[in-house]
Amino acid sequence: MAVYTEVSDDELSAFMAGYDIGDVVSLKGIAEGVENSNYLMQTTRGPYILTLYERRTKVEDLPFFLGLMEHLAKSGVQCPVPVKDKRGQALQTLSGKPAVIISFLQGMWPRKVAAAHCAELGAALATLHQAGLSFGMKRANNLSLDGWRDLYARTGAAADDVEAGLQNLIGAELEALGKAWPKDGLPAGVIHADLFPDNVFFLDGKCSGLIDFYFACTDFLAYDIAVCLNAWCFESDGSFNITKASRLLSSYESVRPLTALEKEKLPLFCRGSALRFLLTRLFDWVNTPAGAMVKRKDPREYLQKLNFHRRVDSIAAYGLT
Amino acid sequence: MAVYTEVSDDELSAFMAGYDIGDVVSLKGIAEGVENSNYLMQTTRGPYILTLYERRTKVEDLPFFLGLMEHLAKSGVQCPVPVKDKRGQALQTLSGKPAVIISFLQGMWPRKVAAAHCAELGAALATLHQAGLSFGMKRANNLSLDGWRDLYARTGAAADDVEAGLQNLIGAELEALGKAWPKDGLPAGVIHADLFPDNVFFLDGKCSGLIDFYFACTDFLAYDIAVCLNAWCFESDGSFNITKASRLLSSYESVRPLTALEKEKLPLFCRGSALRFLLTRLFDWVNTPAGAMVKRKDPREYLQKLNFHRRVDSIAAYGLT
Repeated sequence: MAVYTEVSDDELSAFMAGYDIGDVVSLKGIAEGVENSNYLMQTTRGPYILTLYERRTKVEDLPFFLGLMEHLAKSGVQCPVPVKDKRGQALQTLSGKPAVIISFLQGMWPRKVAAAHCAELGAALATLHQAGLSFGMKRANNLSLDGWRDLYARTGAAADDVEAGLQNLIGAELEALGKAWPKDGLPAGVIHADLFPDNVFFLDGKCSGLIDFYFACTDFLAYDIAVCLNAWCFESDGSFNITKASRLLSSYESVRPLTALEKEKLPLFCRGSALRFLLTRLFDWVNTPAGAMVKRKDPREYLQKLNFHRRVDSIAAYGLT
Repeated sequence: MAVYTEVSDDELSAFMAGYDIGDVVSLKGIAEGVENSNYLMQTTRGPYILTLYERRTKVEDLPFFLGLMEHLAKSGVQCPVPVKDKRGQALQTLSGKPAVIISFLQGMWPRKVAAAHCAELGAALATLHQAGLSFGMKRANNLSLDGWRDLYARTGAAADDVEAGLQNLIGAELEALGKAWPKDGLPAGVIHADLFPDNVFFLDGKCSGLIDFYFACTDFLAYDIAVCLNAWCFESDGSFNITKASRLLSSYESVRPLTALEKEKLPLFCRGSALRFLLTRLFDWVNTPAGAMVKRKDPREYLQKLNFHRRVDSIAAYGLT
């Protein structure tokens, strides 16, 4: 939930004069996306999303993100698309921030994830991966091994304030993952990298689209599956729901079958993905001032997930035989 | 900004089955209203607001608030109206909370208040006051003198942590106001009691309506004007903008002329209204845990306003001659 930048009436009027999408009749800050300011803007033509990019999103990455959405939508992936102004430009400046209007995607994210949602997710993710193969731009995953090592170094001993022994545990895990992590040999391409339930919309039980591509990058496709297994297949008590995982994986494979090496590496990727969210949450936990307006997410949730995957020895543990 | 209650998919489906307003295609928590959870709900018929009432709103007051909105809208005031279900009921229960769907009001609240906004506001406020005279229900203003005394007692010496001497200053002010506050003799009726800029919508420079009637109550009408003078006519540096006040008051009088006693008491009401927001902000400031998700508003802003009005000796200081 975040609205950081307030857009003044005059700024909005000047901004909208560049577009041909009707007159604005309402602009409401919405509780969607934690990194940027998002407004639901009603015009006489219908609803749109107005996004202002805050500090965490790098301006130089925006052409990748915006180009990706456009490419995916053209390739049949249901996702929002940047709306262009009268001169054909999508990326603008508003209230001193990079800003873009994107199309409105119908649907609601599931507040309570069911196995049927995971089945829908699997196919949508595979479709995204296939469509991404023909996208011409690349963006390195800055939240992979090197990024994790950096976060680890910057968190340091503070990890032990969250849980005794955590600093050593992460250090050992980083070393193990560094040794086992593949350099190549697996299908790679565009991954969403943050496909949590609040980024997947549903209508009448069917996936109606994916949003929030601001962590998207180029990496092993199977790593994206690992992110989803972590984000969708654990219950709130920390238990792993193998039915959900099985539905997710088999549905994914109905669109894009996994290679033998992908299957072999999936437990490793699950450990890596768990470590990634453990580290970013830990970093935010340690560095967020107590009075800040941001709700800190408990890093221990991902420590528990990491420990689960460390005990996994094959993809069978995820319900795929 | 506040979304406290997450509505699950199943709960929403069951809830919406009772209505005949189309199928829900989107539900987004919005940053509007600090007391309740508000969602902008798009259905196949158009946009609606879904409000879940949180702890601060008393259930027994809801018939007054909802009945008032309906009465005002019928009397020509532009405001949202409660939407009734198939059985003719507006007030429901959703996710264990009292809940209501209200109609969507077009317009945006002014992020930067101009004198022209104040002129629009004055007429809208007077129209609201006149329409409210024929409303049959009453609700005492629990944030008048007795409520202030209660907040003062519950804040106690903590006031001095915010500003040295503040406890004594408030005590003296409460005593002075208690002596001078009129018992009757002035026009009374429904007041909005919280008509800050974010509760007044504009379209193309014209007031398109008023929202958020959850502080509305029965009190002297001129007290409502005092709330607006405080909320709309001070600049961010604390200075009083007499042009804005003058536009507000003269526009108000173009719809409902003030009586001589109302004019005489307006500086007193301005002090009272400043003290009211000073006290509620002070109470929240002192009682909000540092890590809470609520942005605390600085009470000193209203101390400054209170001090301004204490130096005022006639309505001429507000630009009305």
